Amino acid sequence: MTGRLIGVGTGPGDPELLTLKAVRAIGDADVIAHFLKRGRNGNARGIVAPHWPERAIELPLAYPVTTELDRREDVYKAEIAAFFDESARRIAEFLDQGRNVAVLSEGDPFFYGSYMHIHVRLAPHYPTEVVAGITSMSGCWSQAGVPLMQGDDIFTVLPGTLELSELTQRLSQTDSAVIMKVGRNLPKIRQALEAAGRMEDAIYVERGTMEDAVVSPLTARDDSPAPYFSQVLVPGWKNRP
Amino acid sequence: MTGRLIGVGTGPGDPELLTLKAVRAIGDADVIAHFLKRGRNGNARGIVAPHWPERAIELPLAYPVTTELDRREDVYKAEIAAFFDESARRIAEFLDQGRNVAVLSEGDPFFYGSYMHIHVRLAPHYPTEVVAGITSMSGCWSQAGVPLMQGDDIFTVLPGTLELSELTQRLSQTDSAVIMKVGRNLPKIRQALEAAGRMEDAIYVERGTMEDAVVSPLTARDDSPAPYFSQVLVPGWKNRP
Repeated sequence: MTGRLIGVGTGPGDPELLTLKAVRAIGDADVIAHFLKRGRNGNARGIVAPHWPERAIELPLAYPVTTELDRREDVYKAEIAAFFDESARRIAEFLDQGRNVAVLSEGDPFFYGSYMHIHVRLAPHYPTEVVAGITSMSGCWSQAGVPLMQGDDIFTVLPGTLELSELTQRLSQTDSAVIMKVGRNLPKIRQALEAAGRMEDAIYVERGTMEDAVVSPLTARDDSPAPYFSQVLVPGWKNRP
Repeated sequence: MTGRLIGVGTGPGDPELLTLKAVRAIGDADVIAHFLKRGRNGNARGIVAPHWPERAIELPLAYPVTTELDRREDVYKAEIAAFFDESARRIAEFLDQGRNVAVLSEGDPFFYGSYMHIHVRLAPHYPTEVVAGITSMSGCWSQAGVPLMQGDDIFTVLPGTLELSELTQRLSQTDSAVIMKVGRNLPKIRQALEAAGRMEDAIYVERGTMEDAVVSPLTARDDSPAPYFSQVLVPGWKNRP
């Protein structure tokens, strides 16, 4: 009998935004794997700390590269693919021993999460379950207290890494939007919002649902680099009854 | 001292997908309001039942109209606006008495939820908090076990009520998508997916995360009307490392 692979969403940061199902999955796990940047602890590890069972084996998976390499370069793709192959191999070893492995995933495991790289490698071979988590964007708009979409609105998630012209066009054509990966892209994002006529209502959110969260109109935020995981919310809800 | 208004996300259906924060908010509530269709109990009420405090006052808010009227008609808009005005007035009465009111919202309160109509009417006047919930779409893609988006993918949420031409165009221009409000729009959605060349990977999900959930390739689903809350998932994740 092999063990069970469980992708567990840990939510956007507030430890209380963990689901009952995630708490149970963590409590039942023989092994808990989590991704982290070298030299850091990883947010997910902190969020689940109060529920960590003493007997559980910790399997930290440290990214070999972060932002030093361009994501579109072949050397980056090769390094990161080798990392996910090796991570999957280490997890599979535990599964083969009959141990249940929970893989922590900040936010929701299937919403731009690292867990899905493990999932596609192992789900065809082992019993697998995915425990949905609160996405970072839900955390941000709840923190801001601003409803974004309603009724028949079209909603678009845009990476801040898009070219200015594409970002502008996409913002002009959607009712509401969330822009992720803000970081050093803030001046470009601002230009795109201005050009699309969407600047006025745009909201900047940093570390949504965490204790040191920052929420402000984007017009009040300067262009100094933002944390990579900050977001810009573009409300689209115009014709409410 | 007035009471506190709390919009509480109850998640997509599985009672275990309630967050710790939602459980606490429900336990602390003096009044629990929830939306429902006339003659039905409402999913949210069932999801939170195990956490309902005995002393809490129940405030059911029954929609006056559902699908009998076209949403774009003035008579619909007037009726539904009057309903939200009256619901907000009834909640405000309790807040004025110093009672905390939790308003249940299936999924996430700010992701196409009815709660936001209460929020915009009362948040300017009372202390307010929003507890994020797992969205129905997270529930659906977790249930299906299919990752939709990764890296710099653009992701779009589309209502199935869009015209065929617009639906087709939007599907051609996004990396990944979720189509909501499937219901009687299924034949049109299928046509749009075919025209956009996105039919092959499309997945149909009904009652995601609930005990009687249905997941199947859309190609295996006939065109008989689907439940209103079913969804079609369009994966866009092509270039994974």
